[in-house]
Amino acid sequence: MIYFQCDYVEGCHPKILEKLTETNLEQTPGYGVDRYCESARKKIQTACGLPEAEVHFLVGGTQTNLTVIAALLRPWQGVLSAETGHINCHETGAIEASGHKVLSLPSQDGTITGAQVREYCREHFGSGIKEHTVQPGMVYISHPTENGTLYTKAQLTELKNACREYGLPLFIDGARLGYGLTSPDSDLSLQDIARLSDVFYIGGTKCGAMFGEAVVAANPALAPDFRYMIKQRGGMLAKGRLMGIQFDVLFTDNLYFSICEKAVRQALEIREAFCQAGMPLYGESHTNQQFVMLTQGQMDRLGEKYAYEIWGPGGDGRTIVRFCTSWATRDEDVEALKKDIKALKM
Amino acid sequence: MIYFQCDYVEGCHPKILEKLTETNLEQTPGYGVDRYCESARKKIQTACGLPEAEVHFLVGGTQTNLTVIAALLRPWQGVLSAETGHINCHETGAIEASGHKVLSLPSQDGTITGAQVREYCREHFGSGIKEHTVQPGMVYISHPTENGTLYTKAQLTELKNACREYGLPLFIDGARLGYGLTSPDSDLSLQDIARLSDVFYIGGTKCGAMFGEAVVAANPALAPDFRYMIKQRGGMLAKGRLMGIQFDVLFTDNLYFSICEKAVRQALEIREAFCQAGMPLYGESHTNQQFVMLTQGQMDRLGEKYAYEIWGPGGDGRTIVRFCTSWATRDEDVEALKKDIKALKM
Amino acid sequence: MIYFQCDYVEGCHPKILEKLTETNLEQTPGYGVDRYCESARKKIQTACGLPEAEVHFLVGGTQTNLTVIAALLRPWQGVLSAETGHINCHETGAIEASGHKVLSLPSQDGTITGAQVREYCREHFGSGIKEHTVQPGMVYISHPTENGTLYTKAQLTELKNACREYGLPLFIDGARLGYGLTSPDSDLSLQDIARLSDVFYIGGTKCGAMFGEAVVAANPALAPDFRYMIKQRGGMLAKGRLMGIQFDVLFTDNLYFSICEKAVRQALEIREAFCQAGMPLYGESHTNQQFVMLTQGQMDRLGEKYAYEIWGPGGDGRTIVRFCTSWATRDEDVEALKKDIKALKM
Amino acid sequence: MIYFQCDYVEGCHPKILEKLTETNLEQTPGYGVDRYCESARKKIQTACGLPEAEVHFLVGGTQTNLTVIAALLRPWQGVLSAETGHINCHETGAIEASGHKVLSLPSQDGTITGAQVREYCREHFGSGIKEHTVQPGMVYISHPTENGTLYTKAQLTELKNACREYGLPLFIDGARLGYGLTSPDSDLSLQDIARLSDVFYIGGTKCGAMFGEAVVAANPALAPDFRYMIKQRGGMLAKGRLMGIQFDVLFTDNLYFSICEKAVRQALEIREAFCQAGMPLYGESHTNQQFVMLTQGQMDRLGEKYAYEIWGPGGDGRTIVRFCTSWATRDEDVEALKKDIKALKM
Repeated sequence: MIYFQCDYVEGCHPKILEKLTETNLEQTPGYGVDRYCESARKKIQTACGLPEAEVHFLVGGTQTNLTVIAALLRPWQGVLSAETGHINCHETGAIEASGHKVLSLPSQDGTITGAQVREYCREHFGSGIKEHTVQPGMVYISHPTENGTLYTKAQLTELKNACREYGLPLFIDGARLGYGLTSPDSDLSLQDIARLSDVFYIGGTKCGAMFGEAVVAANPALAPDFRYMIKQRGGMLAKGRLMGIQFDVLFTDNLYFSICEKAVRQALEIREAFCQAGMPLYGESHTNQQFVMLTQGQMDRLGEKYAYEIWGPGGDGRTIVRFCTSWATRDEDVEALKKDIKALKM
Repeated sequence: MIYFQCDYVEGCHPKILEKLTETNLEQTPGYGVDRYCESARKKIQTACGLPEAEVHFLVGGTQTNLTVIAALLRPWQGVLSAETGHINCHETGAIEASGHKVLSLPSQDGTITGAQVREYCREHFGSGIKEHTVQPGMVYISHPTENGTLYTKAQLTELKNACREYGLPLFIDGARLGYGLTSPDSDLSLQDIARLSDVFYIGGTKCGAMFGEAVVAANPALAPDFRYMIKQRGGMLAKGRLMGIQFDVLFTDNLYFSICEKAVRQALEIREAFCQAGMPLYGESHTNQQFVMLTQGQMDRLGEKYAYEIWGPGGDGRTIVRFCTSWATRDEDVEALKKDIKALKM
Repeated sequence: MIYFQCDYVEGCHPKILEKLTETNLEQTPGYGVDRYCESARKKIQTACGLPEAEVHFLVGGTQTNLTVIAALLRPWQGVLSAETGHINCHETGAIEASGHKVLSLPSQDGTITGAQVREYCREHFGSGIKEHTVQPGMVYISHPTENGTLYTKAQLTELKNACREYGLPLFIDGARLGYGLTSPDSDLSLQDIARLSDVFYIGGTKCGAMFGEAVVAANPALAPDFRYMIKQRGGMLAKGRLMGIQFDVLFTDNLYFSICEKAVRQALEIREAFCQAGMPLYGESHTNQQFVMLTQGQMDRLGEKYAYEIWGPGGDGRTIVRFCTSWATRDEDVEALKKDIKALKM
Repeated sequence: MIYFQCDYVEGCHPKILEKLTETNLEQTPGYGVDRYCESARKKIQTACGLPEAEVHFLVGGTQTNLTVIAALLRPWQGVLSAETGHINCHETGAIEASGHKVLSLPSQDGTITGAQVREYCREHFGSGIKEHTVQPGMVYISHPTENGTLYTKAQLTELKNACREYGLPLFIDGARLGYGLTSPDSDLSLQDIARLSDVFYIGGTKCGAMFGEAVVAANPALAPDFRYMIKQRGGMLAKGRLMGIQFDVLFTDNLYFSICEKAVRQALEIREAFCQAGMPLYGESHTNQQFVMLTQGQMDRLGEKYAYEIWGPGGDGRTIVRFCTSWATRDEDVEALKKDIKALKM
């Protein structure tokens, strides 16, 4: 069975494992203040064009989201998010467990707009009994979105402007950031992301690391004492260097971007194969996740060799199915899949 | 500089790294349902003599403590703990952040007794206005304690009996469990721990793993749906197999116990060296942590070559200092330290 | 200005004030264990046909909702509610502040159905990754709903059956219960409400009392130690008897129902007046809240003498406006309003 | 039976009841924005010498404490309090339920000192691993304390200075403030309290009102959007005017202070009677609570006619017992008690 189910079925990029092995018996202080973390921080600051930014390493995405959001909000505030946002759908109420409502905005493709933020805030702050409803306190987006779609620089700028008007910090969940920034469809750079958000994170788990997400806080004043929050929410790894080493490797010689770019290229080839075979695509993803609507017969035949993810009903008896590539996807597996897709047509 | 500061300054046991390397590009499903986790679970169940127990893997100790405790308690309940307990002192209020008060009991050496639990419960449940105070809902202990001390089988049995009388689950924080069970001073086996607690965890981070703690719930009914809690609190690792692989290796060929036993032996040698040199020890630790009271001069001289941890003021102008060994401590470093301790005397 | 804005613009029914005055300098123990609370409890148990039910008095609706819901749910659970439910819309995230997500279900008229509950649960519990989403743990409805609509006995029975199938407690917010039970449109009695829910509350604040809501728990096992929760969430009134006295008066000589019935009759007369005058009504309310769609001109003319509440945009340039009656509404004010409505038509 | 058990066994001062009756059927807007609340606010601002202060009315003490403290703290912070503080002992973990640890400081008489605050902060902020422990975020005191003792102006000034040095807001729980300010032993005025704290509350429940506490925030910037918090935590009374009316009456013609002063005079007479009778007093209370150590025989004899509160064991076979007076205590009851105390001696 070949897995195209998600982007976390393997371990980590071999260069990371080499470095972990090489440094394994070195002795370093705990909790992320070692020299590997320091080196990784510097490389990330440089890559972001933010030499003063704070950089913290956390183990996983849900943990990162709940820690950042709880650090930014006051108790009476909620977080605006697309209804499809990961924090709203797939984190078992982690945000609510920290006391905050997710204020969901309708979304077709996973993105939200500056206009939506403005309208929500206008209605809330204009209401005579505004204190009977949750105050919008920040905005959460994911880039790429859960649907694989991307914000353009214009859209993100517009969203940031709306946030600024209402004093709302903008937080970008970059669990798959590498796959977004290296899409041929993207006009955003890492420096744009850093400049147009208040806090964001660079996903490691899905982009070549064993685990680990790097939180970048352009404006550290927003979350003073953030290390307390990491510790309190259970996110402070004793052997913090494990994440420092991983991000240090990922941000050396452009590794993070080159391995993600490869995965996107592979995903677009799969997309093209489905197109050519006349199968309807679901949504406009130009990143490492591809969504296609298959008949049961098509699913069965592909399912003999490939693992994919069921996304939901697609209408007309079809099912929306997700195929993911990753830094670890092998070209020969992509070739095989493309051939088998082509065969479906006949 | 040679580190005796704590037991998490290195990476992991080489056998673990070998296995991680060997399996690195294998594809497995995420979130802890892969075959490595399954295999590790079976080995742990067998070692505990609890074939029906639930076994879950979490990344770190604070995360484990807050997740288990929040899963067991109802909102109006608190957790009884020694005042020196890790949850009371060194987790940044993680338990309170999940809504529960730590009900601290006085302790000289890090342990608490069945008598203390009975007295607390008798006073609480006997009070006419009991609902104005927090209801004791469970008991937390660490074994070994934060002071390196150990419960005897008689003490633990007595504590468990007191818990049973008041319907309180007993949770054992085993962050350093391996170092406790392999102490020559211990009359408790892993099976005793499993039998005399309701939930406990087998520490990996400090006992040979890169990271990871294995929660063993003898009575799964106490925390139904525990996987929801793990996910909600940010503890569900995407690549769950990383922990399965580590615990699988640790519970193969007795590795967990043999590497911990070695560390305890080294620690007791260091203890003996301090004794011989006439330096007063602090407390009765027979595990991998040793506490000794040093003068400033002694600290300075040892500090030239060795990193240790300042524990607090010791009276008479002395300072309590902690020396830790671990699975990774090298015999030659222990020998050097012993020699330098001996030299202090002269 | 005559207020039809809401049902809490006056103090309390004069009989309550008389009794408060008469007993003012009596001495009683605090916290709701006095003889007035005891007497009120007995009367409510009898009226509900549940002699074993627990009855607790809390000060207000939001407090009651958050206390009951937090007492019933486990941390990984959420509460199913109509998207229009008070807990979802107008309580500033009180439920989320206690750690739980409100799982909203679409609703046209404020009610939800057994079928919706079944479908939600089927999808959740049938999912392979159910622990990545919030577990439905109970169902919240309000009766009458926020839109003034009513459940029929058949609908409520069906909803209760669905809850039972999935082990979900059903909680009924009865902030305006008196106005629901005395509607000519209602086929439900207080005993039906008691029998078809697990916990519900009898609203006092909006139905004749100064303040106070009486929580009735048919199955006390669902929320053992509920008095702890009341105290912890700040709802335990020192002079608890103030609520005992109020509910004792309300449940003497059918007062609660007779004063609510009068208000409903007045509301239906106002409804009829709007109908006759050809103004479109919004929704099918047969309780003390009436919703009508007015033009700006109509709003301005009525607004000269009457206070009403703006509910939202109504389409066609009209606005949905709420007129409320209450136990305190005077017949002459209703007559005046009816005349002025009639005049609008001409 | 005559109650000296606590200061909330009666209803309210008759002048309040008169005003509630007089205004009962008036119509006012809800939620505390009516003219009675407005008038009460102005009178309180004037009495405090803080015309710009925000004044909010909440129903009870626990609710007030939890709402204020949760509004002031960030998630990683705790509140410093005497170990005897009400929030630490008698609120069922309400502060912890809002996510914050109570950082208790030892206290003999219920007060804490500036030196204690400085020492705690110095140790915390000076620690290398400070983020592993809860950050002190504010200071809570009660005045009078739970033991009936009082801060002097010098002590309070010193405490405030310590708070200022570390940027900690000082919050004063004034549940019995009236009884403190009118003690002959007090050198503090209401204006001093207002000037030397950041937030405090004027207790109504125990000082003449049916219920209600008036929160005064000298520096509204500390808790912006405080009305959201009141609503979210269930403390926003629909008929807010009920509290406005009560505080308006209490702050008219010095009523609040004159009725409290009378109670203190009565309490000091009782104290004197115990002294004269040679019974050992417990602590130095010069307010409306008096603590005395009685033998079982003395308790039994007084218990035939009087209700008092058991405070705890007093040593030497004696029990510490509390006698409380209040605004409602009748002089004839005090005389009778004094006579019976005198009789005990013989």
